[in-house]
Amino acid sequence: MNDTDPRPVNLAAKFSKITRFWTPGIVAEANGQYVKLAKVKGELVWHAHDDEDEMFLVVEGRLTLRFRDGRSVDLRPGELYVVPRGVEHLPIADQETHVLVFEPKSTAHTGNVQCDMTVDNPEWL
Amino acid sequence: MNDTDPRPVNLAAKFSKITRFWTPGIVAEANGQYVKLAKVKGELVWHAHDDEDEMFLVVEGRLTLRFRDGRSVDLRPGELYVVPRGVEHLPIADQETHVLVFEPKSTAHTGNVQCDMTVDNPEWL
Repeated sequence: MNDTDPRPVNLAAKFSKITRFWTPGIVAEANGQYVKLAKVKGELVWHAHDDEDEMFLVVEGRLTLRFRDGRSVDLRPGELYVVPRGVEHLPIADQETHVLVFEPKSTAHTGNVQCDMTVDNPEWL
Repeated sequence: MNDTDPRPVNLAAKFSKITRFWTPGIVAEANGQYVKLAKVKGELVWHAHDDEDEMFLVVEGRLTLRFRDGRSVDLRPGELYVVPRGVEHLPIADQETHVLVFEPKSTAHTGNVQCDMTVDNPEWL
């Protein structure tokens, strides 16, 4: 590598810059989609994204996505799941968990719900 | 978890189903994009995707992306890079490397180039 070579995005280095739970930051953009990273712990809020599928990939910890029909999915490191548009979900993490999210740039943090935890304009990490 | 709960996509389990280098398989779909996994070793071929950005995330091993201007980027596990549409690149792996690719469903494997290694219709893993 020389000084002018492009730099990769190192996920661990980006995660280390996150200081608040449930506050996603952007690390990459491709085809109108953002790759966002978030540290999460506890519960977010029930919400849906009417027009966007949302992909979660767990990097560390464990993420549970609950659905209104009583079903849920548990994601461990190296596991991903796509929540289809329009499907209400509640993200829960019993422990500190590091998540990569891939979703359209237009995606609102808590979808059709606005609450204290909502991040309206995510920043680049 | 009960029997009817949705299943996450386990990347390691999906990678274990891949038996050929440079033959990506699909593991998820969201917003018109595919998540594909590939085991790679050696060189693919110089190519560009005229209309699609292509995101590479290395899960295991080491991937080098060379560019026509002489620059290159090395990706190690937990590192990602987006090759912008139209940019010619040559993927190289000196050792067996496991890569997650996120790109539009329309993306042709070797872009504007057709060769023996080209996979025209990737299958779901």
